[in-house]
Amino acid sequence: MTKTSPGRFFEDYRLGETIRHAVPRTVSGGERALYHALYPARHALHSSDAFARACGLPAAPLDDLIVFHTVFGKTVPDISLNALANLGYAEARFLAPVWPGDTLTAESEVIGLKQNSNGKSGVLWVRTRGLNQRGETVLSYVRWVMVRKRDATAPASETTIPELADAVPADDLVVPPGLDFSAYDTDLAGEPHRWGDYEIGERIDHVDGVTVEEAEHMMATRLWQNTARVHFDATAREDGRRLVYGGHVISLARALSFNGLANAQVVAAINGGAHANPCFAGTTVQAWSEVLDRATTSAPGVGALRLRLVAQTAEAEPFSLKGDDGRYLPGVLLDLDYWALLPS
Amino acid sequence: MTKTSPGRFFEDYRLGETIRHAVPRTVSGGERALYHALYPARHALHSSDAFARACGLPAAPLDDLIVFHTVFGKTVPDISLNALANLGYAEARFLAPVWPGDTLTAESEVIGLKQNSNGKSGVLWVRTRGLNQRGETVLSYVRWVMVRKRDATAPASETTIPELADAVPADDLVVPPGLDFSAYDTDLAGEPHRWGDYEIGERIDHVDGVTVEEAEHMMATRLWQNTARVHFDATAREDGRRLVYGGHVISLARALSFNGLANAQVVAAINGGAHANPCFAGTTVQAWSEVLDRATTSAPGVGALRLRLVAQTAEAEPFSLKGDDGRYLPGVLLDLDYWALLPS
Amino acid sequence: MTKTSPGRFFEDYRLGETIRHAVPRTVSGGERALYHALYPARHALHSSDAFARACGLPAAPLDDLIVFHTVFGKTVPDISLNALANLGYAEARFLAPVWPGDTLTAESEVIGLKQNSNGKSGVLWVRTRGLNQRGETVLSYVRWVMVRKRDATAPASETTIPELADAVPADDLVVPPGLDFSAYDTDLAGEPHRWGDYEIGERIDHVDGVTVEEAEHMMATRLWQNTARVHFDATAREDGRRLVYGGHVISLARALSFNGLANAQVVAAINGGAHANPCFAGTTVQAWSEVLDRATTSAPGVGALRLRLVAQTAEAEPFSLKGDDGRYLPGVLLDLDYWALLPS
Repeated sequence: MTKTSPGRFFEDYRLGETIRHAVPRTVSGGERALYHALYPARHALHSSDAFARACGLPAAPLDDLIVFHTVFGKTVPDISLNALANLGYAEARFLAPVWPGDTLTAESEVIGLKQNSNGKSGVLWVRTRGLNQRGETVLSYVRWVMVRKRDATAPASETTIPELADAVPADDLVVPPGLDFSAYDTDLAGEPHRWGDYEIGERIDHVDGVTVEEAEHMMATRLWQNTARVHFDATAREDGRRLVYGGHVISLARALSFNGLANAQVVAAINGGAHANPCFAGTTVQAWSEVLDRATTSAPGVGALRLRLVAQTAEAEPFSLKGDDGRYLPGVLLDLDYWALLPS
Repeated sequence: MTKTSPGRFFEDYRLGETIRHAVPRTVSGGERALYHALYPARHALHSSDAFARACGLPAAPLDDLIVFHTVFGKTVPDISLNALANLGYAEARFLAPVWPGDTLTAESEVIGLKQNSNGKSGVLWVRTRGLNQRGETVLSYVRWVMVRKRDATAPASETTIPELADAVPADDLVVPPGLDFSAYDTDLAGEPHRWGDYEIGERIDHVDGVTVEEAEHMMATRLWQNTARVHFDATAREDGRRLVYGGHVISLARALSFNGLANAQVVAAINGGAHANPCFAGTTVQAWSEVLDRATTSAPGVGALRLRLVAQTAEAEPFSLKGDDGRYLPGVLLDLDYWALLPS
Repeated sequence: MTKTSPGRFFEDYRLGETIRHAVPRTVSGGERALYHALYPARHALHSSDAFARACGLPAAPLDDLIVFHTVFGKTVPDISLNALANLGYAEARFLAPVWPGDTLTAESEVIGLKQNSNGKSGVLWVRTRGLNQRGETVLSYVRWVMVRKRDATAPASETTIPELADAVPADDLVVPPGLDFSAYDTDLAGEPHRWGDYEIGERIDHVDGVTVEEAEHMMATRLWQNTARVHFDATAREDGRRLVYGGHVISLARALSFNGLANAQVVAAINGGAHANPCFAGTTVQAWSEVLDRATTSAPGVGALRLRLVAQTAEAEPFSLKGDDGRYLPGVLLDLDYWALLPS
């Protein structure tokens, strides 16, 4: 029995320690093909080597969310196996493209701890970095989760709450080296709308919907080697339902946003995100976006939009987010705030 | 709202115009592996690089139907988003093999228009071409669909109905360059029956059956970046059922036909096809074939068979196709007419 | 009708004959990605090229069970299409790593025959070999099945029952050339437990569970080009249920065993195995292991453990195997005996 790991509990974390996560992963064209099978992903830069070359890159990089999910999956056994809630993300920046054949590893630094007043759990903040086989950081993000204590009588660690930016400043966005949208082909990309066509406050209903199947969300979540039992084991929760990995909803919503944001080719940063309500198989997921901000970059022809991406059930009213009590409405699944790069 | 495309309506098409379709796609070994997971595909030429080399090719080309589905998928947003019915295919020719690493794009020329007498819809004929990254046409086919009008009062375009061949003439079949079946290994291919063993009029019950799952047909259809909402969104149709993409049934039937046609390695042309009845998850699909014609080719050891491939439900009687009224029987799903290449 | 193969019946086999199986298969990164999507597979040696290089290999070899399933799948049309029962495995040895790009073929020699007393069926023993494109044997194993007779009046063949080893002797285990665990990184592998930390008789409950979906077991089984109808066709069995391929349960159990045996990187041999009870979709599969034996190898830092791997339903009691009558308990799905290589 002692050979299996029960995961870490709140009192096991020390401020400043760095945890190297297990199971490095080489990603390839196989992961890309599966991403296309699991999500209605159509952004041309990730779909076509030829299109990527015409945009100054050596080939099509893997979808930014493949990188996010792969890195996130590695952290689960060390960070969130005993999590009671996934509280938030901040300061996620994609720092270098990932190519087929690259091997990803991950590590997390404990940057914040705050025991809850009930003494039974606490909030843990980590800064996670994904690295490639050359040791280059490809992704960095902060995540915080509420983690159970093993022993309620264990002494509380000193409280440290990290200061986190509301959003990644536009100046800190990293454009993939070489990216050049000055000869961008909107016909091939699928829509004519460029950076200048989007106004702050503009909202887009992405119209399409996808009904989630158990086999699909489980295959997707396993693909990222995410091991949280609640996603796979119908006997793990009292209600007998398997919880859809929140990242599955992120990828569904991002793929659905193609219809209206086909040119938002690159996810450069994630400013924050909330999994507003749990998602289960059988749900039909739809998405809408809101333009929050605009910025320029120094790369040729490349602009940036800060976008709110909301996933909701088919039954929910588009563009409704929170009730009078300030809480997310029951049909809202995801409220994500990110920066995308698109042709200006 | 204006950023999302509602698709084109019948009055938006002009005779002679060419539509470049969006989202180029690089295909790889990942798509091949998924094809094997989604369909019981066993034709050796597409399964094994070594077998393909022994047949004169540099490596195993991607299955011809992967090419068909990928090209077809690109056309959906421009051609059939507002289609009321998928009426037929003709003159489909596979003109060059597609290899892992190739990037496919597609374009369609409007070659026929005929408004329906009710004024609410019309029939659209397009000739679609799939191209690789060198601009070579890899596939050309004609498809016609009934498309809704946005505005019933919009003036009718002049009626033009293209003349289409009943079947691709055997002389127009393109054999993949280098293909040589003179040292063909029937043991490795799985069956001893060669071109000369099939007689016109012969019918083959392929025996095996596959029960279709929602997750499978959705993954397959997404893999081809086909975006038609009826396949993915359980709330899109009044009956709450997701329609299985017709091409999924084509691939299921073609894969099932291995048992009796294991040596029909290459699909060289599709002469015509009808999706006789809709298919839904839960259906067990079976298949039978009929030999319609035979032809020789100039390639060493390569013969051609014109075949009818019928997909039907497990409950239907094999070899039954139409009722006394000339209509397809309810258990018939697909009636496909194609040319295959096999060792002579 | 005569073109389709009904498979071989018991009286069709001759002692000493070798059957070359059809449909060679080139495996790639696509198959690896699908393996990760279908099973919670996390052993680092098969997940990461960089980890494999640090262990002396040129790249990450394909998971040993991908090789097993691919070779096994090829034998089905010739060996077990008319099987009444899959009786056992023995003397399975993995003889050379398989790399992305390799092409696998298979052949089986008939090494035993014994007609049952009822005259309606018999037991067939075959020694199956998987070969790569250079003709090197990558896997060799014995399997025996009970096969139906076509004609009960056909004369019985002479009875020959092969002598089979209870287990592959440790000295006969083949370590992948170059494998060197002397600089093994347990952090990256996921657990600290090395060969010396496991004691004979020790039992490990792997804790995690996976609920099986129809789409998943069918995709997995098709991926190996296994054509047995009972896995795919809901109309094939009287109870309308599709039988999960036994190998799917093997891979699920092996992947679940990561939690407690993360360093058991290589399956070097399978000594025996029983599919104790059938598995159907909806079952939640869990696993436990027992250490049966330990051995050293001549490779640097590489030890071997002989392990019992048991798959069971979530409802069954861990570590329970057989009842007082010597029969497997109803919740036991698989009882597998294998040799694994891990760092010493």
